[in-house]
Amino acid sequence: MSDEGYMSLALNLAKRRKGLTHPNPTVGCVIVKDGEIVGLGYHERAGYPHAEVVALEQAGEKARGSTAYITLEPCTHFGRTPPCTDALIRAGVKKVFVATKDLNPVVSGRGIEKLREEGIEVEVGLLEETARELNEDFFTFVTEKRPFITLKLAQTLDGKIATLRGESKWITSLQSRKYAHRLRAEASAVLVGIKTVIRDNPSLTVRHFPFERQPLRIVIDPELEIPIESNLVSDGEAKTLVVFTRRNPSKERELEERGVALLFMERIELKDLLVELARREVVHLLVEGGAFTVSSFLREGLWDRLVLFQAPKILGDGLTLHNLGIEGIENALRVKLVRELRIKEDKVFEYRREEESTGLRW
Amino acid sequence: MSDEGYMSLALNLAKRRKGLTHPNPTVGCVIVKDGEIVGLGYHERAGYPHAEVVALEQAGEKARGSTAYITLEPCTHFGRTPPCTDALIRAGVKKVFVATKDLNPVVSGRGIEKLREEGIEVEVGLLEETARELNEDFFTFVTEKRPFITLKLAQTLDGKIATLRGESKWITSLQSRKYAHRLRAEASAVLVGIKTVIRDNPSLTVRHFPFERQPLRIVIDPELEIPIESNLVSDGEAKTLVVFTRRNPSKERELEERGVALLFMERIELKDLLVELARREVVHLLVEGGAFTVSSFLREGLWDRLVLFQAPKILGDGLTLHNLGIEGIENALRVKLVRELRIKEDKVFEYRREEESTGLRW
Repeated sequence: MSDEGYMSLALNLAKRRKGLTHPNPTVGCVIVKDGEIVGLGYHERAGYPHAEVVALEQAGEKARGSTAYITLEPCTHFGRTPPCTDALIRAGVKKVFVATKDLNPVVSGRGIEKLREEGIEVEVGLLEETARELNEDFFTFVTEKRPFITLKLAQTLDGKIATLRGESKWITSLQSRKYAHRLRAEASAVLVGIKTVIRDNPSLTVRHFPFERQPLRIVIDPELEIPIESNLVSDGEAKTLVVFTRRNPSKERELEERGVALLFMERIELKDLLVELARREVVHLLVEGGAFTVSSFLREGLWDRLVLFQAPKILGDGLTLHNLGIEGIENALRVKLVRELRIKEDKVFEYRREEESTGLRW
Repeated sequence: MSDEGYMSLALNLAKRRKGLTHPNPTVGCVIVKDGEIVGLGYHERAGYPHAEVVALEQAGEKARGSTAYITLEPCTHFGRTPPCTDALIRAGVKKVFVATKDLNPVVSGRGIEKLREEGIEVEVGLLEETARELNEDFFTFVTEKRPFITLKLAQTLDGKIATLRGESKWITSLQSRKYAHRLRAEASAVLVGIKTVIRDNPSLTVRHFPFERQPLRIVIDPELEIPIESNLVSDGEAKTLVVFTRRNPSKERELEERGVALLFMERIELKDLLVELARREVVHLLVEGGAFTVSSFLREGLWDRLVLFQAPKILGDGLTLHNLGIEGIENALRVKLVRELRIKEDKVFEYRREEESTGLRW
């Protein structure tokens, strides 16, 4: 197999754990000695051994004089586990391919430097683009100290997110909704507005996709209206965080008794909320709606990725994205279509911000 | 070449004339003798010789004992030219492949029958689907006595057709707008509402696509408000028909002096208008907007094809399809995505009615 083939394998190992290693990045590692794969590893979850350590352990003595293919620059710092650079050095690895530098300021280049100092040959940048995208949420989290933000929309082809009464069940097909659970599985937290909770009583859990942990469920609920009998409060399937502005001691107590976490803010400023979520190790935030909530994130420029499910239906009257403060076509928010797929009769589009730089209005 | 190869060639000849032969169908013909192509022909435009006649003439004596590949069942009736069946019989063609029967009740099967009666072997249905679609506008016209209707929309990804002030210049890229001229080139007439004329002063002509004749320009203008200085009235680039309900003798005279055709209706009922347009040999009507006009056709179920240009932009507030009389997601109009392409950053989707039958609510 070629170097690219081995790295591709390492990336596939890492992909399996996407979203499951937060607040850590997902990493894969392949160790090759004399054309034979002697070790495979991935980082299982935070607190577990890193990918390199797993692969080196598997390789045992064969690691001596081997080549390692690692999807992310190995760490040099003591976190929950000891530094991986040391493990590679101790094992006698001869050459290391690193797909991408770790943008985490704590690592950034030091891992590579350390290996080279010890006489290990290091090549950086093999399949770099894929490796960057794989951990883009983590990179955003560590460099900008805020969650990576995915906005999800499900629309008719005429842009309707719901009927005028707010009904949105179901615009897209069952297959699309199942696919949407993958987005949840890859996120650390899922956020909705209180109207969506009151109207739809969603559970916001990952059900139609293999998963190991449920994302945190977040509700923006200024008036603390969330019904005690709602799934988010009472189903016990995952943790729930309610963000509110109006104090209501008895309701607060009721919610806390049911294990709901509360976050009081004088005013709900999304930026402040994001800083707080980053503090709580939310690496990747999925904003699921409704129209008002998604519009708020768009209006403030607080998003990295927009996933649009588009059903081949026409509704006419209904709710759409609105109130973005845009006047004139020339000021429309330009986005970049980076991926599309078809799921049964629906289309799924993935858009990114048009600016080439990271540049949120942050 | 295979039979399919020859028919494919005949279809390509016919495609070149799509929209240019109205009110006739577009037809291509290939004559093959002993593995050699001895005649190629297409129907140039109404009043000109039919494809078979052109190809037979080119073949000359070689037509005797040949095989003809014709995209549409040959006619048996005297129209503006004599019947093609007679020409094929006289020329001594031995075998005829017909891609599709002519659904025109005047022909429908009789051409095939006539050829068989004369001992010519006839095979029907080679590349039938392509041949049907190629003349679907014509087939709708002759069987339903109304124009085939294409609705065109240009939207942002959030479904906005224009800003709240009605501005729509330009949602899509220049390349998409050029492509949209192909839709005009294939239509017999282009229709807009008066608001679009007053706001945008469009010329509605084919400019960015090779063409030979301009489609008829139709304006729905109940109050006869069309400005005398508008392009549609004064540019002389194509014929214009104004549909109105409020008599205004001096304005009517002014318009007529400038060569504008007028159609008075007590009330503008789209169905009645379509019957009248069919009488005027409008085979294919392209409805270009704005939001109100396209919504009206959708609401009444008067459409066959919807072409949606979708730009990777978000507008927020703006005009969308509306007032379709649909309540509840379960009653949303379901359509079928049959084709999609990407033009620069834009997407173009072609939808058809979901019903498998021809079935307009007609």
